[in-house]
Amino acid sequence: MWSAIVTARKRKLTFLLALLLWSPLLHAQEPVDTLAIRLIREEGLQRSQVMETLFWLTDVYGPRLTGSPQLDSAMAWAARQLQAWGVQHVRQEPWGPFGRGWTLHHFRMEVTAPVSFPVLAYPKAWSPDIEGPVTAEVVRFDVEDTSAFAAYRGKLRGKIVLLEPPRELNEPFEPLARRRDADDLLALANAAHPEGGGRRYSAAALRRLELAQQRLQFLYEEQPLAILDRNFRGDYGTVFVSAARVPAPPGTPWFERPGPWKPGVQVIPQFTVAVEHYNRIYRLLERGFRVEMTIDLDVSYHENDPYEYNLIAELPGTDPRIGDELVMLGAHFDSWHAGTGATDNAAGSAVMMEAMRILKRVYDQLGRGPRRTIRLALWTGEEQGLLGSRAYVNQHFAELQGWGQPPARLKPAHEKFSVYFNLDNGGGKIRGIYLQGNEAVAPIFRAWLAPFHDLGAATISLRNTGGTDHLSFDAVGLPGFQFIQDHLAYGTRTHHSNMDVFDHVIADDLKQAATIVAAFAYHAAERDERIPRKPLPLPEGTR
Amino acid sequence: MWSAIVTARKRKLTFLLALLLWSPLLHAQEPVDTLAIRLIREEGLQRSQVMETLFWLTDVYGPRLTGSPQLDSAMAWAARQLQAWGVQHVRQEPWGPFGRGWTLHHFRMEVTAPVSFPVLAYPKAWSPDIEGPVTAEVVRFDVEDTSAFAAYRGKLRGKIVLLEPPRELNEPFEPLARRRDADDLLALANAAHPEGGGRRYSAAALRRLELAQQRLQFLYEEQPLAILDRNFRGDYGTVFVSAARVPAPPGTPWFERPGPWKPGVQVIPQFTVAVEHYNRIYRLLERGFRVEMTIDLDVSYHENDPYEYNLIAELPGTDPRIGDELVMLGAHFDSWHAGTGATDNAAGSAVMMEAMRILKRVYDQLGRGPRRTIRLALWTGEEQGLLGSRAYVNQHFAELQGWGQPPARLKPAHEKFSVYFNLDNGGGKIRGIYLQGNEAVAPIFRAWLAPFHDLGAATISLRNTGGTDHLSFDAVGLPGFQFIQDHLAYGTRTHHSNMDVFDHVIADDLKQAATIVAAFAYHAAERDERIPRKPLPLPEGTR
Repeated sequence: MWSAIVTARKRKLTFLLALLLWSPLLHAQEPVDTLAIRLIREEGLQRSQVMETLFWLTDVYGPRLTGSPQLDSAMAWAARQLQAWGVQHVRQEPWGPFGRGWTLHHFRMEVTAPVSFPVLAYPKAWSPDIEGPVTAEVVRFDVEDTSAFAAYRGKLRGKIVLLEPPRELNEPFEPLARRRDADDLLALANAAHPEGGGRRYSAAALRRLELAQQRLQFLYEEQPLAILDRNFRGDYGTVFVSAARVPAPPGTPWFERPGPWKPGVQVIPQFTVAVEHYNRIYRLLERGFRVEMTIDLDVSYHENDPYEYNLIAELPGTDPRIGDELVMLGAHFDSWHAGTGATDNAAGSAVMMEAMRILKRVYDQLGRGPRRTIRLALWTGEEQGLLGSRAYVNQHFAELQGWGQPPARLKPAHEKFSVYFNLDNGGGKIRGIYLQGNEAVAPIFRAWLAPFHDLGAATISLRNTGGTDHLSFDAVGLPGFQFIQDHLAYGTRTHHSNMDVFDHVIADDLKQAATIVAAFAYHAAERDERIPRKPLPLPEGTR
Repeated sequence: MWSAIVTARKRKLTFLLALLLWSPLLHAQEPVDTLAIRLIREEGLQRSQVMETLFWLTDVYGPRLTGSPQLDSAMAWAARQLQAWGVQHVRQEPWGPFGRGWTLHHFRMEVTAPVSFPVLAYPKAWSPDIEGPVTAEVVRFDVEDTSAFAAYRGKLRGKIVLLEPPRELNEPFEPLARRRDADDLLALANAAHPEGGGRRYSAAALRRLELAQQRLQFLYEEQPLAILDRNFRGDYGTVFVSAARVPAPPGTPWFERPGPWKPGVQVIPQFTVAVEHYNRIYRLLERGFRVEMTIDLDVSYHENDPYEYNLIAELPGTDPRIGDELVMLGAHFDSWHAGTGATDNAAGSAVMMEAMRILKRVYDQLGRGPRRTIRLALWTGEEQGLLGSRAYVNQHFAELQGWGQPPARLKPAHEKFSVYFNLDNGGGKIRGIYLQGNEAVAPIFRAWLAPFHDLGAATISLRNTGGTDHLSFDAVGLPGFQFIQDHLAYGTRTHHSNMDVFDHVIADDLKQAATIVAAFAYHAAERDERIPRKPLPLPEGTR
């Protein structure tokens, strides 16, 4: 009986231990280091350098299009700055080959008939030169199904084509910038566990996407001088611009589509025009006016170095047992080209650099280093499909297969990884964090947010959020998280626009974000255990 | 006693008659013609052509800078259109000499060092050519008092000068467009009788104005290549631009200042730069970077016809007794040059033209003409100081002296004048009318607004409103009124901006305005009496 009693006692002890380790009760008592938080807040809120960093990344070195010399210069500056702050092992890790870089030297676009006016527009990235200036006729391309192609066959060469119909505008009776209110945060807090995932398209949407590809294919066969669109958002002088489009063979998945940055890919010059000017041109054509435009576009391609680089820097771990375990902070460093990439994502990059600076200062004040290694990664190629972060994960943690597939093989460092924190939803302050469906981290993050309720950061949401580099980690079962941020004017004005510039970043928001990120990194580095994970293989569609 | 009784009775009768004629009771019974209102509403709301008119005035012929060939073309089109509608006595009445016209052919502005980026900017009207492109150094001009001039003497020639410090931006947490709400309208309804008037400047403001003149004088002595500012409003790609500045001798009243349109006046090229780009350049200079810009500006002056024209058109009066009395509708037809002058003031011009079209159709349906003459006036030179309407008043109604002075002499037509209605506060629908301190018209306008409460127009306000052409009439004791309009995005986005274009006008608002204006003109033309006047000479400052 004794042994039986002993066994029962052992079982009970095991159960109690498990309860202690895993129960919500214990998680609610996740420790926070009040001294460290005080030091982090002082450094982050009172001695911030985040706007200084932002200035260099935007005004001086922006924009930072992947592959461009300006991106290289910006990264070289960031490397020097991190070293100057005492952050260690600063290095550029190559990935690729990516393709060619692109620099805009100048462009000019004017309507010259039936009236003359300067056109507010931006070339799409990787558009080739239009040596000139060249004056050409502007024509509509009203194709709602493939039967309409015949009417345009042989008639578009050398013309300037309006790709889409006018867009009707609504006056801004609602604020263009906003902070998350209680309703908004409550909806996030109460969100259910994310089911499945991935974007699902209706049959009608799939047909539209297919038609868009067919239209593009047709235009590439017909070789107009230039293609103009007006994007689906933006007005009053804000123009949203990304990359020139190239046609893909039917059925090509989006992540395998040929980018205009690929060497040898032929690109037709493309421009996004301020919607008001686009609509004006379209209306003139509708009334039967012959419209002519003059375009001049001077760009360079950079083919000499097809590789790109992520910038990596560390505060090395000092705990003999867990010093080689990783806590990572990251943000993408590349941007689109029409602004200076201030909110997308110099803001995130500056916050993450600032978090490293804060942590270095705080550990110095504490007279020791972090237990785990805290590693910063500034990614490139994010705007072309999370290329830099995916390559990094592939190089270090797990051999990737296609999107939505489980990894082919895990690498040893996969086991040593604790957590990755990302910031890439604009310049808005942190209001909480998305759990990415990982329920076990809820009590941990709840405890870590508790000292920052006064700064507006309190909400945890089971919801997934997508579109940025934490997905590269999440896809291989590594805990990767993106913070919940205030919207500000990200969706309406700055995200990929010509107005994504320094002046539309709010200093207090970046200071708050850097402070909270630093505290999260500190606690993740100092915690006894790594951050709990979701099970592998991943449920289908969870990414 | 009888005779005494008779006298008393006569007195009582006279008193009752006076009461009938002048009492608020009678005024409350100001007649409205329900048949005419029904016809006007049908024509104005269901068969509107106002957006068609707006299209021609903006997309085809805009902008319409005073003195420019485009203004002439727009006016020729409007004259043809009015004639096509059957409006009579369409004629251009000259005023002036105004000076020279100006046409922008093209321009280009780029920062070329220490980084390259295209600059969103517009030349100020009447800036002369910069033949080039010319590349020059950009310098700050931080002059807060005259002692600072010495440091700049001899150093600005050939440079590009930043006229003012950066402007800090606020994100758009408040709506940029708005309609008047009940609070706003109630404040107008309850406004007291306007006292005095005119803009009063504080001593500090006067010193700032004087310093601004001194700075301008200094710059004209130093002859930089160009002067850049960033205006006090606008962001996110909306740039507010008006005329190049030229210095005036100290003490010159504003209405006598030399305009850059005056023949022989030397003008330094001036540009208003998007605030974000301006601030970026300034920040780079602050950090010690040498900044260079490339500018190219190709314009024409037009000196051949120094006169300008107001466009006049009529529905002739048909009442033998009062057919030569005048009811006038007007709006200024000229605009600034960076957009197409859509809300300032193609909207007002299109509404007034549409009101004439509606009236012509309605009188045709009624089988008769108006009792009084209804005359349309589309003014020019408004943006340079109400020049066209003042000249018209001077030619027809009263010899003008300086601003704020009573007229020197009244002309016979002064007596035959009933009322002038103006529309020039953007594209917003009519919410009521400013009485301009004329209390006697309150019951009349209240009755005329009654059939339009369902369209949101109900408020009468004793308040004065200024800044547009009704002032030219009001200044000589003629009843001149401007309607209360919804703000929309006039003050924040369109008024004198590059985004004052067709797409930011709301069709339903213009239809409503044209309908109400037509009804006001109809009632003013059909009413037995002319509109009551304020006493002459004018109280000081009432204009």
